[in-house]
Amino acid sequence: VTPAPESLPADATLADAGEFGAIAAFTAVFRQSEAVVVGPGDDAASVRVPGDVLVATDVLVEGRHFRRDWAEAHDVGRRAAAQSLSDLNAMGGTTTAVTVGLAAPADLPLQWARGLAEGIAAECDLVGASVVGGDLTRCDLVVISLTAIGHADGDPVLRSGARPGDVVALRGRQGWAAAGLAVLSRGFRSPRAVVEAYRRPEVPYAAGPQALAAGATAMVDVSDGLLADLGHVALASGVAIDLVSAALPVAEPLQAVGAALGADPLGFVLGGGDDHPVVATFPAGTDLPEGWTVIGAVVEGSESGEGGAAAGQVTVDGAAYDGERGWRHF
Amino acid sequence: VTPAPESLPADATLADAGEFGAIAAFTAVFRQSEAVVVGPGDDAASVRVPGDVLVATDVLVEGRHFRRDWAEAHDVGRRAAAQSLSDLNAMGGTTTAVTVGLAAPADLPLQWARGLAEGIAAECDLVGASVVGGDLTRCDLVVISLTAIGHADGDPVLRSGARPGDVVALRGRQGWAAAGLAVLSRGFRSPRAVVEAYRRPEVPYAAGPQALAAGATAMVDVSDGLLADLGHVALASGVAIDLVSAALPVAEPLQAVGAALGADPLGFVLGGGDDHPVVATFPAGTDLPEGWTVIGAVVEGSESGEGGAAAGQVTVDGAAYDGERGWRHF
Repeated sequence: VTPAPESLPADATLADAGEFGAIAAFTAVFRQSEAVVVGPGDDAASVRVPGDVLVATDVLVEGRHFRRDWAEAHDVGRRAAAQSLSDLNAMGGTTTAVTVGLAAPADLPLQWARGLAEGIAAECDLVGASVVGGDLTRCDLVVISLTAIGHADGDPVLRSGARPGDVVALRGRQGWAAAGLAVLSRGFRSPRAVVEAYRRPEVPYAAGPQALAAGATAMVDVSDGLLADLGHVALASGVAIDLVSAALPVAEPLQAVGAALGADPLGFVLGGGDDHPVVATFPAGTDLPEGWTVIGAVVEGSESGEGGAAAGQVTVDGAAYDGERGWRHF
Repeated sequence: VTPAPESLPADATLADAGEFGAIAAFTAVFRQSEAVVVGPGDDAASVRVPGDVLVATDVLVEGRHFRRDWAEAHDVGRRAAAQSLSDLNAMGGTTTAVTVGLAAPADLPLQWARGLAEGIAAECDLVGASVVGGDLTRCDLVVISLTAIGHADGDPVLRSGARPGDVVALRGRQGWAAAGLAVLSRGFRSPRAVVEAYRRPEVPYAAGPQALAAGATAMVDVSDGLLADLGHVALASGVAIDLVSAALPVAEPLQAVGAALGADPLGFVLGGGDDHPVVATFPAGTDLPEGWTVIGAVVEGSESGEGGAAAGQVTVDGAAYDGERGWRHF
């Protein structure tokens, strides 16, 4: 027998609610858009997507991507959703629906799981996406897998289209989450702006489709680090990229954290992940949409790198950057 | 620097290969169908799906859904894929593409992970689906999240369409995996047929679309247990279901396991999960497609259950079944 969620005590766990009780509690949180033909509760959902289907999956693991003592469930949910929604944004697309695979301990408070669901739903609301299904299973730690499906108006913008002579432009906060993580790692809770940025990214969801419409030749979202992710673009495109340090936005809170921790705040911008801005390349002379900042240029890159830059190389002011370059998962 | 997979020793781990080396090793395993517009390696994949998009996600957790000492990596991959592909089958649909979220320990042998990828690819090959993307991240244990997207030719068959008077019919092996698990749990490795069935389900992938075309009113795949999953159909449809024990197929290996373990083999059929046959309801008089066995009938069910069956109830020969009813995740 599955207890009704409202009949459970405030400190109920997933085990108290049972699989179906917990799922009912989550599902009550999710609103379904008109694109949803079959919503949660069947073997599969059915979603109306105009044209080809964009799909991306990301996994967040407790202790690695988030800590329950550093972030509220709601914020973990927002980050989990933001990561996959941002992937579609970086193709120039918009998310229509998501599914959530949640593995969690039996003693996880139902309140926490519901907060997670609310955070996922809130982030999805920003782009009009619906949570249409998923799976709940038991695990010793919390693992969240989120898949986004959606579409782009036009051909998606790949990583492989950058051409020498293109400008490189950025839209969205970059380095804030890394600064927040640095602060939290040292036991501080301020500056609040960067700590909040680490807990809850502000993804520029309009920017991806905007860049597609403006003729972006390549695009990526910064999840691993600006140099690391631009390295993926450069490698896939067979080019090199040179950034101009003076053009990189080092916001005031990042300068404050740098000063307090004795670190170069440019390192947060160049190496930090988790903010999910978009960085794209455009043909020189493109009238860039509002909010985009030119931060560098695409240059020739050869396989050998002899007599110039190697394909895949990302330099800063023409030289290799020797600070922290990003985040490695293994 | 990412080492080329072929340059790594046979006992290399995920950490040796690195995130991108490991992903390259997996991606080499996956073939892309003509439906794939953008395959692995970008922020998102792009897939051509005709009509509305069916989507389902399932999560497998090491120690709960599989044990590395009981099953080869290849078989775990097949099971992981089968679970989600079967969800689309149970809507009357076919999978076009899947994404895989893999959380795994740094010391997981690369060989094991590659075997998993090969198993996923082999199962996907059965329906012509492509593995188009995913995510790899570190975790203390192996957690596999698999999302299937695809489509149905016609309106998907829901759980909620069963009507009193419909026949209930089954297609595919049922109870075999549960018998295999019972055998393995007691330290035996035979009968081989049921142990193999536990390790690698044989999903009747043609059966779902066939049932849709034949006019099935409701359908579900048996993943939690025949009674449990038919209970979902009955509840969603506001009806009750009565099964005829003499009509239920109790195959010879199940009888052998029952005799050896002193268990009623009917319990495997009624309560066992993981085989992923499909069970559907059809209007009486429907000319059933080949391979389907009528196992019961849909009857009236009322909310109170007074003077008859309650909605959601599944009986056997008109009475409640008091054996094991299925598998609970919490």
